[in-house]
Order: sequence, then structure tokens, then C-alpha cells
Amino acid sequence: MQTAEEPEVSFDTDPGRYRHWKLAVDGATATLSLNVAEDGGLVPGYELKMNSYDLGVDIELYDAVQRLRFEHPEVRAVVLTSMKDRMFCAGANIRMLAQSSHAWKVNFCKFTNETRNGIEDAAACSGQAYIAALNGTAAGGGYELALACDQILLVDDGSSAVALPEVPLLGVLPGTGGLTRLVDKRGVRRDRADVFATTAEGIKGAKAVAWRLVDEIAPARDFAAAAGRLAQAASARSARPAGAAGIALTPLHRQTDGDVTRYDHLRVEIDRRAGTATIVIEGPAAAPDSLAALHADGASSWALATVRELDDAILRLRTNEPDVGTWLLTTKGDPAAVAATGALLLAHAGDWLVNEIIQYWKRTLRRLDTTSRSLIALITPGSCFAGLLLEVALAADRQYMLDGIFSDDEEPAPPAVLRLDEFNTGLLPMSSGRSRLQIRFVGSEPDARAAAAAAGQDLTAADAERLGLVTETPDDLDWADEVRLVVEERASFSPDALTGMEANFRFAGPETPETKIFGRLTAWQNWIFQRPNAAGPQGALCRYGTGQRADYDRKRV
Amino acid sequence: MQTAEEPEVSFDTDPGRYRHWKLAVDGATATLSLNVAEDGGLVPGYELKMNSYDLGVDIELYDAVQRLRFEHPEVRAVVLTSMKDRMFCAGANIRMLAQSSHAWKVNFCKFTNETRNGIEDAAACSGQAYIAALNGTAAGGGYELALACDQILLVDDGSSAVALPEVPLLGVLPGTGGLTRLVDKRGVRRDRADVFATTAEGIKGAKAVAWRLVDEIAPARDFAAAAGRLAQAASARSARPAGAAGIALTPLHRQTDGDVTRYDHLRVEIDRRAGTATIVIEGPAAAPDSLAALHADGASSWALATVRELDDAILRLRTNEPDVGTWLLTTKGDPAAVAATGALLLAHAGDWLVNEIIQYWKRTLRRLDTTSRSLIALITPGSCFAGLLLEVALAADRQYMLDGIFSDDEEPAPPAVLRLDEFNTGLLPMSSGRSRLQIRFVGSEPDARAAAAAAGQDLTAADAERLGLVTETPDDLDWADEVRLVVEERASFSPDALTGMEANFRFAGPETPETKIFGRLTAWQNWIFQRPNAAGPQGALCRYGTGQRADYDRKRV
Repeated sequence: MQTAEEPEVSFDTDPGRYRHWKLAVDGATATLSLNVAEDGGLVPGYELKMNSYDLGVDIELYDAVQRLRFEHPEVRAVVLTSMKDRMFCAGANIRMLAQSSHAWKVNFCKFTNETRNGIEDAAACSGQAYIAALNGTAAGGGYELALACDQILLVDDGSSAVALPEVPLLGVLPGTGGLTRLVDKRGVRRDRADVFATTAEGIKGAKAVAWRLVDEIAPARDFAAAAGRLAQAASARSARPAGAAGIALTPLHRQTDGDVTRYDHLRVEIDRRAGTATIVIEGPAAAPDSLAALHADGASSWALATVRELDDAILRLRTNEPDVGTWLLTTKGDPAAVAATGALLLAHAGDWLVNEIIQYWKRTLRRLDTTSRSLIALITPGSCFAGLLLEVALAADRQYMLDGIFSDDEEPAPPAVLRLDEFNTGLLPMSSGRSRLQIRFVGSEPDARAAAAAAGQDLTAADAERLGLVTETPDDLDWADEVRLVVEERASFSPDALTGMEANFRFAGPETPETKIFGRLTAWQNWIFQRPNAAGPQGALCRYGTGQRADYDRKRV
Repeated sequence: MQTAEEPEVSFDTDPGRYRHWKLAVDGATATLSLNVAEDGGLVPGYELKMNSYDLGVDIELYDAVQRLRFEHPEVRAVVLTSMKDRMFCAGANIRMLAQSSHAWKVNFCKFTNETRNGIEDAAACSGQAYIAALNGTAAGGGYELALACDQILLVDDGSSAVALPEVPLLGVLPGTGGLTRLVDKRGVRRDRADVFATTAEGIKGAKAVAWRLVDEIAPARDFAAAAGRLAQAASARSARPAGAAGIALTPLHRQTDGDVTRYDHLRVEIDRRAGTATIVIEGPAAAPDSLAALHADGASSWALATVRELDDAILRLRTNEPDVGTWLLTTKGDPAAVAATGALLLAHAGDWLVNEIIQYWKRTLRRLDTTSRSLIALITPGSCFAGLLLEVALAADRQYMLDGIFSDDEEPAPPAVLRLDEFNTGLLPMSSGRSRLQIRFVGSEPDARAAAAAAGQDLTAADAERLGLVTETPDDLDWADEVRLVVEERASFSPDALTGMEANFRFAGPETPETKIFGRLTAWQNWIFQRPNAAGPQGALCRYGTGQRADYDRKRV
């Protein structure tokens, strides 16, 4: 069923170019309205009927969610609704799923999951609450989008329902967090969750409230007022600042030349023979002079520009370069300038823009955590793995740190140092709510404490090894061989086994709904997406809409 | 690669019949020695070289673990070792995996996982600690078996190592908890876990200790003494009773007649057309008179006999009847007698045998939780869903309770009642450590408290519905249709989607290493087991041992 040509995907967009969403801001309330263009699919071969979506629709949603946080400090509540009559959203487009390759489906689900987590993050960390105003039926991924909102209002018109028809109709799972959010977030009783998720037509009206599937219902004539009331109440609870000016997320500067892509502060070099992408992040020249300077710099300030570039690079590599299995993460610059930038952010952590920048780093690092690529940090002379940027290394599966200098270099850079600060000890928690340091030392409190106690010091390779912050510390003589060996080894292993292994190690420690969504629900969905009962020619995805029922192998596995 | 004929499997065995293990008890220490018979495979087509195992080997291990708890109250430490030279255990047999169907592999992994959890449970809940005395290399599942033990001793002979070669050699995951136990149980640093799990030859000697992969090493000449010392120390910490007499686990009485299997207290009826197995558990005629009477009855006492039968029925249905996708769980008998039996157990919960019986119910109910079948409890007149047996209903995905009587019956039984007691409020925790009631109401503390407060009362269908203990309460007129509909509906859905959905709802709430093993690691392994990179003709499992390398699709998914 891999019939579609899957195109190179760009994540560049802005509200003026949206084809599927309309973003309107009115004081403290924004309204984000879904009106999917049927002929606007990202890939040929399907029509986006009934507000169903594909990756392209979700890229616009992601853009809107990001812009609301940076460009609209005044917005305290976002009403998510639809411009179609009696249909909020029918979920992911089935024909799109049926024609997509396994890799495309999995990557699509991962991105949509991340965007929905971002919606929850806006409420939790930015005082920007989402209200799902379901003016019609919300089915499948449409209802899962609502589940990611703070509150759900459903029109009570005798027909509009919420539904998860994936299991009964499609032979797959609700793949964007629905199963987890039903029970773990909304507290739907598990037997009722079972009934609901096997009832294709869904549940409506008072029963939807009684079962906790929605928070409120309102007849059509009162619907807009009810949505407004919920938005106002959410606004009243919000700590968003008054009178702040937003920061425009101007277009990224990105130039691609063959296998090299350059941004202002970041470079990606693909080596197709080795199966690697080297991501070089350049540190700032200096910290901003003041909070005011940071605001004035806006999207061009290093801390914001760099995380936007890193986010874009991750998304593009993940979507467009599935054969590039190992990412080599490195940095270049002055660790003191990174630390000083971090210190400025930290000193003004209560400022809304600083908070947004920090939260964006948090989300982007979490995107790294869920990336199905081997991540290897290379810590070499001239690098600047301090604070924020050290966290990139700690997100990696392994850390290699050169002990000493590259003595063959004409002007050898000084030996690399690591520097820990608050960004490593709690400011950028993983999905589990714990810092990457805590998870690194999950079974060993004393080691975690010893590492945290070294904050603020310049740590040499020997220090870093002693503190357990790096995997290996080869010297100049061994460096090239050691890196070559790990890259070759990684390329020789089963990509699937690596993905499974890395996912298990990265999500050590406690669990949250977010870790469950990535660690567990995703794995089950991946499994089901592979099964002939879903993806085979007689499977439910391909048979959907043909009038023929799926032909299931009845073995329970 | 589904070449083998997968036979009907029996779980009946005893130490006199073991082909692969030797069980020796010497005072407070038992020694369980692995000596796999190469020609003793359960299925034709492979040889069990180097102490590698298949389901048959693990069935004996499970039997030994159970017997040690019931038959040997004097045993406080179990030394797990091997009778082969320089080889503790090479893990699951690769040729067996390569020739097995997907369903067989998944079921095999699940059973081995449950057995390893049982080993941890023996230490945690019975003061019977396992010491892995690795007299040679422990690779793959062999090392995962050691990881399930309390402590790991490795011989320091310059060659014996611990290893997880699955990723580098086989393109699959260590599927019996290894990845989770490395980081979450033993606190191996995640980058080191990555290095270790990609190093086919493993790690030995002092480095294995430094990396927390083993607890101690000892040269060959001191090895037996070191193992003895660890066993003695574990014994000293144990609260197992002194001078108690064990209970012989006599053979189960099981008679199969076509699609009906009868035990002393349990009946299983398969309806192949409907795809259902009805499991009827009969309650006790009366509670034992006293603790002494319970001991005297031994394996024939209702509480122990019934849980053994239920365990056997679950295992046989899971392994031998994969096409039977829905289990209907019901009971027959006097709820007061079940409650009285529970009260006697509760009154003597400190007694070692009572404790063993309770823990066995706990483990068996957890086996239900991880069973990939739809579980529907049918609560009808004449049933006895109280305490222990109510927990069977709460393990189900849905509960249907008849409101009233079957008026067409000649002598209608009185309406069903439910009765909650301590067995439902904490004595039989799920893998998450929470009771099934807590997980049922995971998002709703008040509902959980209201249900718990109803303990001790006879709850009618109306009560049960009000308290949220049942899904539906049809009356006599609707009962048959309602049950038929749910059975037909279940049979019409994708078995894979149901498995994924049920696993997500059953494991709501907090997570533990045990829930991670079943909820997450298993799902990843299932996915990988389906992938051509592992199971395809060019995949690693089929190519293993042929001298040809696997041919991987390099796409990262």
C-alpha cells in the first residue's frame, strides 16, 4: 500500500499562508478555526473531506500554537473550533493513512502527538488555555485534539457526538494520545472507556458529560456564549502579562546546498555513505546586555533563533531523511557566553518572553528524546556544551568527549569543558517531569547529587568522566577511530531494534501521560500499523470506504 | 518463517519429570540448576544448545518457582546456577524464535516475563530471595533471568561475561525485561546501558561490577563459597517461618471433553463459532473451619486449588487457543462462603501459607491483566462475586450484571450481589501497585472512596451501577441480547486493535518496572518481531548462524 510519492516536507508557514486554519485574535481570546481545504492535501491521492487532516493541516496547527505563545502575550485563552457545519473534525484522513508508508504514518503520528502535547504545555506553562468548542462531531483524531485541550464543550444538537471509531472501523488505535488521555487525564472509567472506544458512532449530549468525555454541553443557540464564558473563565485564571508586546516569528534563514543546510546558528551536514547527519550548533557571541535587549532582538536573539532552527532541523531530518540513522550532535563557540546567556534568562525567568524561550527549548529537547535516530554527542575542543547546550548532549544516547586537544590543528582550540547550571538540574524537564541528569542517574541518587553539585564549574574530560557525564573520553590519537567505530556499528544494526532500545533507555524512571503516549501507546500503534489486519490488502485501513469488510486473522497475539 | 508445527502445550510438570532443571534443597537454601537437554525442545526443529531455552524449559522453571514457595517454607534463598561448564545460559533459543509464528513468540515472551516477575515477587512478598550464581556467561535471556534475581554473582575467570546481544546480533530487543531492569531496577547509567546492549560479547569482571551489571565477582575457586555467602546473607534477612511444613502441589484434576474442560472448581467451555471461552469459577461450599484446617486441606483447600486451576486455565487458553478472542468470566456459588473464606485468610494474613495463597491470587489476576483477550465478566443470579472472586470481575474489560432474576428458570436463583472486601481495596494490587478499584477510578478519588466505603455490604445491581462497579445492568428481557451483541461485536473487531486498546486501558494510572515491561517493552518487541528486519527472510533472526549478515532496510521509523 505504499502508493504515494511522499514529498519533501517543509514546516515553513505563517497565518497568511494557512489553507486549513483561520487564526483570529480578539483581546485575550484567540479563535483557531478549522476549515480544511479538501484539495489541500500534502500528498496526491486523497481528499481531505469533513475536516479530516494530514500532516500539512497539522503543520499549520503547530505554527499557530507556536505563534500564539510568542506573538500574542495578550492571549490567555484559545478557542479551537471549526468552520464546517456539524463537523468539528473527522480525524486523520483514512485514505492518507491507507496509502502511506509505515514510516510516514509513524512520523505523522509522532508530530501530531508533539503538537497536542504542546497545546497542553501552553496551558500548563504559559497560562494560555485551549478550549475545544465542538460545534459538531469530533471523531478519532478530531476528538483526540479536543482531549488535548483544557476543556471540552460539545454542541447539544441531537446529533453531534464525540467518538473514537478507530478500533471498530479501522482496526487501529486512536494514535494521538486518546486512549491515555481518556483514562489518565480525564478519569473516564476504564470499562466505559472500552465501551466508548468500541462504539463507532460515539456518545453525545448529557451522557458524554456523565461519562466525563466532555466538560459541558450547550444547545446551538447558546453555544457561542458558552464557549465565550469558558474562554473568559480561563483568561481570568491566567497569569499572562498585561500590556506586553509580542515577538514576531520571522521566517527562518535556511540555505541548502546539496547535503549541507545552513541556518544562522546551526549547520546540518549529511553524510549519506555513513548514514549520519552532523548537527553543529553555534553558541552566542555574547549574552544579551539586558532583558530589554533580548526583547528588542526578538526572533533574532540567539536563544530564540537557535531553538527555532534546531526544531526545524529536527523536524526536517526526521521527515525527509529516514535513511540517515545517526545524528552527531556538536557545538561550537564560547561556553562562557552560553552560560552567561543562560544566566540572563535565569535572572529573568519570570518574564513572559524568557519563559517562552525556556519552554521552547524544553519542548525541542523532548522532540529530540522521541526522535527515532541514534543520537551521539561529540564534545571536542572549541565546543560550548554549557547549560542549555549541554542539555543537547545529555539528550543523546552517548557522549564522547575528547580528552585534550587536536594537536594536528594549526591553532588548536583549547580542550573542551562542560558546564552545568540550572538548565541541567530542573529547568528543562523531560516528559517524565525529571531532569535529564536525574534520569541519567535514575538508580543512583548519590551520583545525581555529585553531578548537580558540580554546577558552575568548568569540567574537563577527566572531571566529566569521574562524574559520569560522558560515556568515553578518547584522546587525540584514538578520537577519529572511536567515532568512526560507533558510527559504523550503529549503521550495521537493525534500525528497528535501535529504535526500540533507545526508546526504552531514554524513558527510564517515572512515567506521565506524556511518556505513556510516546513510550507505550506509540509502540502499540506502530505494531498495529504493521499488522496485516490493519495495513494488509484485506486489512481495515485499505478496505475502509470500499463497502467491503476487513478480513481479519482472528488470532489474538 | 512459520515452519514449525506448534503443539498443544501442557503446563503440568514436577521436579521428578524435569528435563532441564535440577532442584536441590539444603536447609534454608535451594539450588536450582539449569542443564538443558539439547534434544528436549518442545517443538521439533531446533536443538537447545548452550543452555538456551524454549517454552518447555521455562515451564519447568515456573513450576519450580511455585513449588519453592508452597512446598518449601524453609527455603529462604534460591541459588540459580548452571550445570554446564562456562555457560550459565545463552538465552532464548534463536532457531526456535526464527521458526516460530508471531503469536508463539509473543506468548512465549509474555510467559517468561511473568515467570521472572514471579521470581522478584518471591523475594519481595515471601522472603525467598534469588541469587543468580553465574558460573559462566549469561547472554540475552540468560542475563535477563539473572536481572530478575535479587543479586548477581559472576565468576571472574577471564572469559565469562554478561551480555545482551539481541540488538547487535539478532535485530530484536532483549524481550524479557532486560532493558527496563538495567536502567530502572539496577540503575545502570543510560549511556552505559546503550553501550552494553550493543556490545555482543558483553562485559566481564570488575567492569561488570563498576557498571552495576552484576553485584559481585569471584574467581572460580571462591565461586561456590561466594554464592553460599550471598545465600546465607539473604536467608538472614528473610522472615520465612521456622519449622513450618510445606504443602505439596499435587497434580491438578483436569478433564477435557471436546471443548469443555473441567477442573474441581472451575469449568472452561469454548464456543468456537462465537470465539468465546466461558470460564466458570465455583465458589467454596463453606470457609475452612480454622487456619489449621486450611493447612490440613493443603492443595485441596478451595482457595489454593481454585487459583491453581484458574492459572492453568489461563495459560492453556492463552497458549493453545489463540483464535478464542473473548473470555466470559463468571462464578457460581454462595457469596457469603467466598466472603467467609476471604475473612479467614485475612484474619491469618501473617501465616506463611495464607500469604502464599494471597500472593498466588495476586499473580494470577495480574496474568489476567496481561492476557491479550477481551475479558467480559457476567454477573448473574447464583454467582458469587465477593472479595477474591469479585476481583476477577474487576480485572475484566467490562462487567455485565443482571438486574433481577432469570424468571424462566424453574427455580430462579436469587439476584446476584457483589461484595467488596480488603481483597478489592489493596490486598491484590495490580502491577502498578494500585488496586483494581483505584485504577478503575483513577481520575476520580471520590468515586474510589465511595466504592471502598461500600465494603461488606451486599450490593444489588442498582447499587453496583450507582457505585460504578459495573458497566451495564440489563434485566432478564435484555440480558441474552446484550451479551450476544457484545460477543458478536468483539468478534467483528481487529484482534490486534483490541489487544492494543485493552493494554492501554488496563494499565491506566502509575507505572512500575513491571507495567513498563508489559505495557511498553512488550509493545516495542511485538513491533520489532513483525518487522522484516527481524523476521523476514533476509532478517536477522533467520540469517543468524548462517554466516550471512542480515540485510536491513535502513529507514528509521
